[in-house]
Amino acid sequence: MPPMEAQVAVVKAPKYATGESGDSLEMIERPSGGLSLVLADGQTSGRAAKAVAGMVVRKAISLLADGVRDGAAARAASDYLFTHRSGKVQATLNILSIDLHSQSLVVTRNNPAPVFLLQDGDLRVLDGAVDPVGGRRAVRPEIHQVPLQVGLAAVVFTDGLMYAGERSGRPIDLPRRIQALAAEAAPDPARWADELLSEALALDDGRPGDDITVLVAAILDREGKDVRRLTVRMPF
Amino acid sequence: MPPMEAQVAVVKAPKYATGESGDSLEMIERPSGGLSLVLADGQTSGRAAKAVAGMVVRKAISLLADGVRDGAAARAASDYLFTHRSGKVQATLNILSIDLHSQSLVVTRNNPAPVFLLQDGDLRVLDGAVDPVGGRRAVRPEIHQVPLQVGLAAVVFTDGLMYAGERSGRPIDLPRRIQALAAEAAPDPARWADELLSEALALDDGRPGDDITVLVAAILDREGKDVRRLTVRMPF
Repeated sequence: MPPMEAQVAVVKAPKYATGESGDSLEMIERPSGGLSLVLADGQTSGRAAKAVAGMVVRKAISLLADGVRDGAAARAASDYLFTHRSGKVQATLNILSIDLHSQSLVVTRNNPAPVFLLQDGDLRVLDGAVDPVGGRRAVRPEIHQVPLQVGLAAVVFTDGLMYAGERSGRPIDLPRRIQALAAEAAPDPARWADELLSEALALDDGRPGDDITVLVAAILDREGKDVRRLTVRMPF
Repeated sequence: MPPMEAQVAVVKAPKYATGESGDSLEMIERPSGGLSLVLADGQTSGRAAKAVAGMVVRKAISLLADGVRDGAAARAASDYLFTHRSGKVQATLNILSIDLHSQSLVVTRNNPAPVFLLQDGDLRVLDGAVDPVGGRRAVRPEIHQVPLQVGLAAVVFTDGLMYAGERSGRPIDLPRRIQALAAEAAPDPARWADELLSEALALDDGRPGDDITVLVAAILDREGKDVRRLTVRMPF
């Protein structure tokens, strides 16, 4: 394989006037090589939602860190939430893994929101019917696994992005917006995530009605040295 | 308090010709608010070191995610490694937390390498004698806790940075280098981390004799919206 690099960007904005986002995202290095990102959105909003989302994400992350495969981690996180909250609370869950062992991108969905996957220049919408986790026993995720290759990209988000602009009567046209990004020469995760969030915030007049998280990952030609980089910004 | 933001940057380069860095770094959101970054460097290099560092980091991260305080997480990680490897393997450990609950930066050291702390315009070197984790029972960390305020910055690294250039007879002068960065108008974690790593790699003629990880965190005036950001680059 030619030298490649994965680039990942996540942006996250809280629902207006709540201060704390109910979306939870964590990242972990896979013990057999690569990265996994886990994103959950807890039912309701604010602190209660955050607690539920955090519970789901931490369970999944801890299993992935032990080498558990993605689908099994999602099922376990669902059973765990169901057991501890008696099926009364649900959360959406997405796992995105860049798995260097199997040389594949793995997308795991327990979220009615679609995932957009750019592969060989074609934009696919992954939107098979799935349930959120925790509401009943035996919830199953939808899993897509595709080979790592230059130009591959995935756009994952919580439902806050989908419903941006609805209150103001100017709903975001995500398929058209992401199609336009996908037509660019090469994916640019940091800019793509920023642009999608900025458009959503603008349509909501800067006052989003729900937490919004956008996660974009892409595989690119490797530029420069064998150096890993991580940057974080956290306003408080 | 005025609106602030934390910025964190990590860069990581593997020892020349090993491909895999023995340094391990993970980040987790603190359940009571804020972020913790955990950095470990396992004894020896390559895959064996990576396994040890990963074990230590995952244990600490998992405890921090459950709300365990930093010092207790470091002690537990040490006991865990000691128990599982009978004291035969050690690892250095650093925890850096931006704790929004106590409104403080918490630096935890089980690493002979110093941590540089920029506070009120003064550069302090945190270099009290401490042992790495896992070599014996009852290893204790050194902990520093300082209030979050604009201009605060911390520079944390594994020993690969300290010994850069030694083989070529041009050892890096870290105190002078970091003093020069600290004299700038405001901390810039991404650039600071990049510059320190670039200098180390240049002194080693691009072939570092050890894994090098540099972690820089700073507290700045908040610029722009209430949006959290994460970006990652992973060459493979």
